[in-house]
Amino acid sequence: MMPDLRNPDALTQMRAAFDRQGIMATLGITVAEVGPGLVILALPFRPDLTQHHGFVHAGVITTAMDSAAGFAAFTLMDADAEVLTAEFKANFLAPARGQTFRMVGEVIKSGRTLTFAEARAYAMDGTTETLIATFTATMMAVRDPGLRERSNPATL
Amino acid sequence: MMPDLRNPDALTQMRAAFDRQGIMATLGITVAEVGPGLVILALPFRPDLTQHHGFVHAGVITTAMDSAAGFAAFTLMDADAEVLTAEFKANFLAPARGQTFRMVGEVIKSGRTLTFAEARAYAMDGTTETLIATFTATMMAVRDPGLRERSNPATL
Amino acid sequence: MMPDLRNPDALTQMRAAFDRQGIMATLGITVAEVGPGLVILALPFRPDLTQHHGFVHAGVITTAMDSAAGFAAFTLMDADAEVLTAEFKANFLAPARGQTFRMVGEVIKSGRTLTFAEARAYAMDGTTETLIATFTATMMAVRDPGLRERSNPATL
Amino acid sequence: MMPDLRNPDALTQMRAAFDRQGIMATLGITVAEVGPGLVILALPFRPDLTQHHGFVHAGVITTAMDSAAGFAAFTLMDADAEVLTAEFKANFLAPARGQTFRMVGEVIKSGRTLTFAEARAYAMDGTTETLIATFTATMMAVRDPGLRERSNPATL
Repeated sequence: MMPDLRNPDALTQMRAAFDRQGIMATLGITVAEVGPGLVILALPFRPDLTQHHGFVHAGVITTAMDSAAGFAAFTLMDADAEVLTAEFKANFLAPARGQTFRMVGEVIKSGRTLTFAEARAYAMDGTTETLIATFTATMMAVRDPGLRERSNPATL
Repeated sequence: MMPDLRNPDALTQMRAAFDRQGIMATLGITVAEVGPGLVILALPFRPDLTQHHGFVHAGVITTAMDSAAGFAAFTLMDADAEVLTAEFKANFLAPARGQTFRMVGEVIKSGRTLTFAEARAYAMDGTTETLIATFTATMMAVRDPGLRERSNPATL
Repeated sequence: MMPDLRNPDALTQMRAAFDRQGIMATLGITVAEVGPGLVILALPFRPDLTQHHGFVHAGVITTAMDSAAGFAAFTLMDADAEVLTAEFKANFLAPARGQTFRMVGEVIKSGRTLTFAEARAYAMDGTTETLIATFTATMMAVRDPGLRERSNPATL
Repeated sequence: MMPDLRNPDALTQMRAAFDRQGIMATLGITVAEVGPGLVILALPFRPDLTQHHGFVHAGVITTAMDSAAGFAAFTLMDADAEVLTAEFKANFLAPARGQTFRMVGEVIKSGRTLTFAEARAYAMDGTTETLIATFTATMMAVRDPGLRERSNPATL
């Protein structure tokens, strides 16, 4: 069942917001697929993204999972809302070993203020795809422009 | 109370392992202070680390908190152990707004296999320092070289 | 530094709300101390609270940590707000072995909508007190009576 | 795909361990279904399990989710292993309102030492079933009897 959009321009606005994120270009993360409540991101391996065993750093995978989940939440928000991450939790099931990585973010429940979203990260190593991490997050819709300026969930 | 080192070379080995992490140079994260069970990292603001509101992306702050906590855990491990992150949780209390950021990682309990560690991230904006994020993690000591090769907590 | 109360009756209201919780009497959890942004709860050991190794079940300790953190958040909220737990995370450092347990809940950051709170659980075994668990939570202030009726963070 | 049992007596041993948990009888939680890597528990509403709005307390639902996930992990462990919860995270999507509750615990990845498991809690209110909570956990296999005695993940 595909959720309804509250904001007809949400998918276009989501891509524009994604493109304003300097860190995505820095890490080489791109948008692979967008739908209502669903965002899939792609990340190719690069040696300058690794931890000390030569695998992609858990923090890089998490950055991509956070973006996938956060923008999935954004697609279901009102036209006047922006999205902020209040908290997240990640479990690492296997090392980020592979040539490309795929992060699938999905909304579990979308509310006016809070959205619960999840993400899963997969590594493609040769022709084998492995689930390497799971992620859950609480995303917050921020509406007031002044608050948005401060962008601080805890003062909202 | 400062914990004892099981491995007298732990602090030196920790810095060498830190320097093998490609992602730390990519993001500009450096070691500010190291002690038994304590690692403090520093990160200057850069526009190419930001999310779409112009603040440093939560994933970048998390990457630094994970490294601070993980290497703090590493300092208290045996000489033959390497450290892997099994899971972490982060709360974001305020936007990562500032010129420099400081991540303080500390060990809460160090065991033979599992270590519980925490980190806090602070933003220095002008002369004001603000707590912007909290972080807890379960770190795993990996000993067998073959297992280390696979670096997979869930198969250990 | 003791935080200010927004609601002068908050501490009294907190105790009344605590007493309306059927589960607290069932488990034998009582209020030991209350202050602005701080709640300490006590729990004596009982065999009917145990898991299969004879220690108090992690879920019972978590129930008490959630109450300590949630009511600590409640003490700093507006007079018209009620508190709901949006999410929490717990780490278990040692088994819940002892004759009495003490849960200390504290507010890290109190906002209009979201409050970040933490708790720690200690076991008193003979004369030795041990940190057995840590806990972080996102608490939500619910204001609208209709919403309060539904008590659903994700629809607010 | 149903995972293989390493221990042919795992399902029988799981039920015996469940029955040794005093807290399950106290809260009225029973086993509805058991399979390799899967445990479903049931909980009827009782007024003495409630928080101050009259819903079942989040800690009670969490106790049941922890047991569902932990015993699901146990079913896939070796014959000489016992299970301990190292950490968990729960999100609450809707109030625990209903006449009966169902907790479904499943193993995501089972390793020699660590198992990643998840649970979901559903409320049955009249004829409507609602997802009310999600849960992820790191479970630890404990083998050495002496360690088992101490039952302390962080000293293993």
